[in-house]
Amino acid sequence: MSHAVLFLDFISTFAFALVGAKVAALKGMDYGGITFVAAVSALSGGTFRNLALQIQVAWLYQPYLLIAALLAVVFVIAFASKPIGKFAIILDSIGLAFAAVAGVNLSLEHGAQPFAAIVLGVLSAVLGGLIRDVLCQTPPVLLHRETNGTATLLGSIVFAILYKFNVPFSVTATISGLIILAIRLVSIRFKWNLPKLRK
Amino acid sequence: MSHAVLFLDFISTFAFALVGAKVAALKGMDYGGITFVAAVSALSGGTFRNLALQIQVAWLYQPYLLIAALLAVVFVIAFASKPIGKFAIILDSIGLAFAAVAGVNLSLEHGAQPFAAIVLGVLSAVLGGLIRDVLCQTPPVLLHRETNGTATLLGSIVFAILYKFNVPFSVTATISGLIILAIRLVSIRFKWNLPKLRK
Amino acid sequence: MSHAVLFLDFISTFAFALVGAKVAALKGMDYGGITFVAAVSALSGGTFRNLALQIQVAWLYQPYLLIAALLAVVFVIAFASKPIGKFAIILDSIGLAFAAVAGVNLSLEHGAQPFAAIVLGVLSAVLGGLIRDVLCQTPPVLLHRETNGTATLLGSIVFAILYKFNVPFSVTATISGLIILAIRLVSIRFKWNLPKLRK
Repeated sequence: MSHAVLFLDFISTFAFALVGAKVAALKGMDYGGITFVAAVSALSGGTFRNLALQIQVAWLYQPYLLIAALLAVVFVIAFASKPIGKFAIILDSIGLAFAAVAGVNLSLEHGAQPFAAIVLGVLSAVLGGLIRDVLCQTPPVLLHRETNGTATLLGSIVFAILYKFNVPFSVTATISGLIILAIRLVSIRFKWNLPKLRK
Repeated sequence: MSHAVLFLDFISTFAFALVGAKVAALKGMDYGGITFVAAVSALSGGTFRNLALQIQVAWLYQPYLLIAALLAVVFVIAFASKPIGKFAIILDSIGLAFAAVAGVNLSLEHGAQPFAAIVLGVLSAVLGGLIRDVLCQTPPVLLHRETNGTATLLGSIVFAILYKFNVPFSVTATISGLIILAIRLVSIRFKWNLPKLRK
Repeated sequence: MSHAVLFLDFISTFAFALVGAKVAALKGMDYGGITFVAAVSALSGGTFRNLALQIQVAWLYQPYLLIAALLAVVFVIAFASKPIGKFAIILDSIGLAFAAVAGVNLSLEHGAQPFAAIVLGVLSAVLGGLIRDVLCQTPPVLLHRETNGTATLLGSIVFAILYKFNVPFSVTATISGLIILAIRLVSIRFKWNLPKLRK
């Protein structure tokens, strides 16, 4: 994996672990549960991505990913009394952008079809939060009232198109990452949601 | 993978996505959640099967599988006001039969023990529905009052036996597929269930 | 895989399947659900471990693992009216010790970083019980009030350290296994728990 992917993974790992640890703490889990949910939130997306691409699972051979997750747990425990609302949302949105960009890039480089690479980009970004909600037994926000999926989907599509036209990685990653970040922050600000199906 | 397996995968993908999208819509999920649950319902079984066999995950390189899942979502959204009960049950039963047959066949061809190939055939067929229910936070029908497991188990056992005796694929697949379909439809018609354990 | 790992896997498979089948039966699942939950409880940890290490999933090629799980189901159904409390807890603790030792050993032998091997040792031991609770829709004991995680974590750390100093496998496995067993049994006896985060 390139250094760029490693760096993107580090930031998104920390962000996802932070949110995961906070959700688990609010659910009344013990320190073990908090750490476990944080690690699962942070590492599931990338783990599935690499298993699906039949390449090494990164955290087995790159200890810094587990360290990023543990740092986030220490952070949440140290500042337990403080709400982390805004900070966590912004960091989580950055994490989403980084995880999606890293996911779609890695998938395309390993020969996945563009259509599948886009799906894998989305999954890299959202799978951890989904499993977090399942473990915490709350209705998954991803499935009910979120724009995480839409934002990472659009960003991943843009990435795949720019990649197809051989735009340099730095430009491609920046544009598609900013799209994800913008959609997330605007949708949070104005409480945008996807419509539901009339029954 | 052979063309036969690809065709079986396509039909069962569409069927599982259709049921998944309907269940998600009834749970009040938004369009993103419906699409996500549909895709997970449709692709989990085959994804796990291929990961376990250490072969390529099909939908990464065969875009038609994702297209089948998306078509089912469009179908459910377009006909949202209509109940799809009977049609969905029949299609789902066909999907189960196809997925189990494809799963046990692929596993045997990749050197899995017959016993394990049977388990993998069953898992190919039922895993998507199980994860669907976990994501939708309903008690998994598979575990409480279903004959999906029994039907696909018996069909997979028959497949493995016929395969052992070198019966041609077309005959083996037809017989074991029809067994699954018959058990499913008869058990639905007469509300058969497996017994529970007296406590 | 060495014979030692196979033997450890067999015992822990039986133990986890026994507890899984009992939990599923108490939840009112039918025979199919009981068998399914038992198998998932028993095989998830080792399956994930091997997928992550990119080596063969053991139960596909070693039928004795599925047989161990089935034996446990027969045992639970045959003695359905008897509580299995103490026996199950002791067996489950032995299973945890064996699964963690086998997991960390296999991971180190396949070149995982010590830090990651420890995580994989813990996951080998606890993942089945976690998925069992998700399928049975009970709050995962692992995350709320358990010492499974702590016990297997400490045992796995000791294993990794002794392994690093080239202590023979039999000594390393015995010491770290006994540590896990001791922590489990003492914590059950005195109702020890990890602290929760003050909110």
